[in-house]
Formats: sequence, C-alpha cells, structure tokens
Amino acid sequence: MSSVASVILPSPSSSAPPEAFAQNSMYGKGFYEPGQYQVALKRCENGHDLALHLCEMFDERTQIEMAYINSLKNWSKKWHGELVKSQEYGTNKKVWDQTVATGEVMADIHSTLASNLSDSITPKLRQWRKDNYEKSLIHYKKTKEFEKDFDSVQKTWIKLLDKIQELKQSYYQSCKMLKHAEANERNASDDEQRRKLSDKVDVAKREVGFTRTKYQQALKDMSDQRPRYEQQMSEVFQRTQQFEKKRLDFFKETFDEYEKVLDLNNNPMLKKMHDDYQQALQMHDSQQDITWWDQNYGTQTNCRWPEFEEYPEEK
Amino acid sequence: MSSVASVILPSPSSSAPPEAFAQNSMYGKGFYEPGQYQVALKRCENGHDLALHLCEMFDERTQIEMAYINSLKNWSKKWHGELVKSQEYGTNKKVWDQTVATGEVMADIHSTLASNLSDSITPKLRQWRKDNYEKSLIHYKKTKEFEKDFDSVQKTWIKLLDKIQELKQSYYQSCKMLKHAEANERNASDDEQRRKLSDKVDVAKREVGFTRTKYQQALKDMSDQRPRYEQQMSEVFQRTQQFEKKRLDFFKETFDEYEKVLDLNNNPMLKKMHDDYQQALQMHDSQQDITWWDQNYGTQTNCRWPEFEEYPEEK
Repeated sequence: MSSVASVILPSPSSSAPPEAFAQNSMYGKGFYEPGQYQVALKRCENGHDLALHLCEMFDERTQIEMAYINSLKNWSKKWHGELVKSQEYGTNKKVWDQTVATGEVMADIHSTLASNLSDSITPKLRQWRKDNYEKSLIHYKKTKEFEKDFDSVQKTWIKLLDKIQELKQSYYQSCKMLKHAEANERNASDDEQRRKLSDKVDVAKREVGFTRTKYQQALKDMSDQRPRYEQQMSEVFQRTQQFEKKRLDFFKETFDEYEKVLDLNNNPMLKKMHDDYQQALQMHDSQQDITWWDQNYGTQTNCRWPEFEEYPEEK
Repeated sequence: MSSVASVILPSPSSSAPPEAFAQNSMYGKGFYEPGQYQVALKRCENGHDLALHLCEMFDERTQIEMAYINSLKNWSKKWHGELVKSQEYGTNKKVWDQTVATGEVMADIHSTLASNLSDSITPKLRQWRKDNYEKSLIHYKKTKEFEKDFDSVQKTWIKLLDKIQELKQSYYQSCKMLKHAEANERNASDDEQRRKLSDKVDVAKREVGFTRTKYQQALKDMSDQRPRYEQQMSEVFQRTQQFEKKRLDFFKETFDEYEKVLDLNNNPMLKKMHDDYQQALQMHDSQQDITWWDQNYGTQTNCRWPEFEEYPEEK
C-alpha cells in the first residue's frame, strides 16, 4: 500500500499540499481508470495519520502549558515566601501579595486549558482514531476493506480492458498478414502462382473482417458495461467519502472544543483575579501605612525618661 | 548600621513580618529613647531592598513569559510546517491552520505583558531606586543623611541623660557617706570623738543637700528641654515618613501599571483571535471539502477509455 501511495502522492518531504497534486504524474488520470482508486485508500490512511498529528500537536501544547503553569506556581510560591520574610507592611504589602497571587490565578487559568487538552480533547481523539482506523477482532482495517471492495469491482473491468488490448493486437496482426499477402500477390511470377496468392489474400481479408468485428464487439461490451462498472466503483467511493466526512466532522467538533477551552473572554477566574486586584489597589493607603508605622515604631510610642529616685533606705 | 539593625529588627532568616516586631527586645521602647531612631533608618534601607526585590520578581516573571512565548512560537511554527506538508485540505485545513495561529496570537498577547514588564515597569523601578537611594555627586545617601540629622539632635540630649546619671551617682555617693558618718557618730567612744564625728555628719548632710539639688535641677532641665528635643526628633522623623510615603506611592503606581498590563478583559488581540477562529469554524464545511475532493480526485475526474483505432496505414 505504502509503495503504491508514494508513487501516487507527494512524499512527506515535499511541501506539496493536496491542492498541488496537479504536479503529480498520476493527476489528470480519471478515478475509474485501473489502480486510480489508490488515491482514495491513501486519503483513508492519511485520516489516521492526521488524527495522530492533531493529537501530537495538542500534546505538545499541553506540555508547553504545564511548563508555564509550573513556572508561575513556583514564582508565586517563592515570592509569597520572600514577602512574608520581608520588612514590607500594611496595605502596600497586601497589594504586593495580590500581585504575587495573580501568578497563581494565571496558573489556574492555564491549568484549565491544559487539563481540557489532556483529559478531554486528546483522549477523545485517540479513542476515535482507535475506533475508526484500527483493526479489531470483528472489523477489518477500514483501508483494507475499501481496497478489497474496489479491487473486486475493478477485476472484471481490467479483464475486459485486457481483452480489448488482445483483440486489437489480433486485428493488427491480421492486417499485417493481409498487407504481406497483397504484396506477395503483386509480385507473383505467373498466373498459377497469382491465383494461389489471391486465395491467400481472400483468406487474410476474411480474417481481418473477423478480428475487427471481435475488436469492435469488445469495445461495445465495454461501453455497455461501463455504467454498471462506474456505478459499482462509485458506491465504494461514496463509502470512502462518508468515512472521510465523519473524520472532518469529528475534527470540527475537536476544534470547537478547543475554541471553547481557549476562550478567555468573560472567564470567571480572570474576572475574579482583576476584581480582587483592583479591590486591593483601592484599599492601598500610604498615609494609613505610615501612620500605623508612626504608632508602632515612631513618635507615638511611649518613652521612659529618668525620674527622681531616692537613695534606697535599705542600703 | 547593619550590625545595629540586626539587633533592632528580626534577621532575614526569621519569618517575622514587621507586624511581629513585638517579639523583638527593642520593641516597647519609645522612639525618642537613645538609639531608637535606628528603626527608621532600617526602614529606609529596607525601602531600597524592597525595590530591588520587586524588580527581581518582575524580572523573573518576564523570563517565565519569554520562555512561554518562545515555546508557543516554536509550536506554531512547527505545526504550520507540518500542516503545509500534510495531506489535509479544504475548510478543515483552514480551521486547523487557525488553531495553530492561536499559538502565535497567545504568544503576542504574552509578549505585550513581557515587554511592558521589561521595557517599562522594571526600568522605571530601577531608575527610581537609583534616584532615591543611591549616593550621587551632589547627594548623600538618604539613610546617611537621616542618620546625621537624628544623631545631631540626639547628641545634646544624650549628654543631658548622662549628666543626670552622673549627678544621681554623686547624690547616692553622698547619701552613702552620710550613712557612714552617722554610724561612726553612734559608735563614738567619748564626747570629744562624738563632737568631731558630729561635725562630719553636718558636712555630709550639706553635701547630700547639695548633690540632691543638682540631681533634681538636671531632671528639671530635662523636662524643660524635652518638648524642644522631641520636636526636633519628630521633624527628622517626619522626613523619613515622607520619604517612605513616596516609596509606598511609587510602589502603588507600579502595581497599577502591572494591573493594566495583566488585564485581558476586552483585550483586542484576544478578541480578534476568537473572532478569527469562530469565523473559520463557521466556514468549516465537510460536505464542501469532500465534494471538492470528488471533483479533483474522485468520480468527477475525466477517464480515457479505449476507442477503436484503425491499423496505421504507414506500417
């Protein structure tokens, strides 16, 4: 299958998309011609490979998100710790803390994306690929099934084409014999010989008429059988079309889900993060902070000054 | 400065925030007491360190964003390439392409965050720290300036306190001498000796009266000078308060800017990404895709079938 396909379709190393198949030598031949159904089988195989690719793509994206999430979490953890140890205080400390907390919220938001990819989108893709493309106890591999059906329909048709080719050769052969007989007749040395050779020409002419009739009859058979052949091929082809449509519809569903997962508009976590942050910013009050500091470390603290102390009597 | 500060304030290895200073032995002493102004100098130094911390925190966040951006860009680049090479086609390919493009848009959105951090927020923080905390040709380091001023105000005050301590000691010494003279008088063996000792008691009593007056006078001086001393100390303290308030207000501005940078609500790039994606999804048409395929590779393609070919005359 793969060796045939590599002839039909551009190799993966070329950058030609299907729209550029015109460059391929096979393009331009009709689908009903012998072996051309391979292009439909190759598309069926491609469906499997594309599902694999899409899965890999989402897996890689999940890895990227996970790395980002871990970095953000570590960043928040580290700076929460630094802030606790620091000499920062008051409302300014609260806003700083909220700044650090945005890292955690961003991590949570990206965790939602990552877990939707890894727990829903890719497992569904994998299962779908398995269900639709892989061999099971009760099902043939889909491509094999289509190949059998195409091949079975095309077998009699190829026999007919081969027969036409053979009958054409027979006709040409008898034409050649006739030419030869006629030349011999023209070169006859005497009447006796000419009569004999003329008989041979007659025989050859009859043979030409006979082979031409068979050749033409085979062509007529082909024309007569063509609608039925094409009908049968088309039926199998329509099944590959429906199989491919199922793939396209499933991919659409997958893309739909990804779109929803990626949508940060009106994301409640994002909204809450900003509400919390803005609330902290509104509570920021540098005057309050320095007043608190004055009360606890500054001029509002109580001082003890020397007072008159009498000489202790007991001494 | 640092050795003094380490006595006054919790060491960085302890996790005590300023609110927990009560655990510190120095807490509970009044700000005007000798040396207690160190707490205000330490806060001034902390302002510098906290600006450095905030800068580091945003720098680390920038690094995290840069790593994420690069991963997303590489992801998009790789899968754009894979998609071009692949056998995907039609509207499904367009949506897939849009899926890959979301990686680039997300990278652009995070680039805005990263460049705001690295090109605006942190350079401003660094410049502000330099302008406010570092020594320059024309300015002393702020902490040194405050230290000089506090020290200069407290110098005369400490002299007064030392003098009180000395006068108290003199008073106690003369009381002790009096006690001793009185005991000697009580133990006199004869009248002659008693009269001599009684004279000594009188001298000692006068000395006690004299030193007590001086001791009391010094205490009165202290009370008289205290308002002016506290006024002068408070003036320097208020300058440290205003200096700290400037820091808190600048930090607030920084947090405000970060909040705006982080705000993804109504982000135009994010909105455009979703609009483009949804538009691509709406254009997704699996029926159109398989029809196109049928026309280009399937039953709509032209086949060439054998026709009657006459034996070529020239042979």
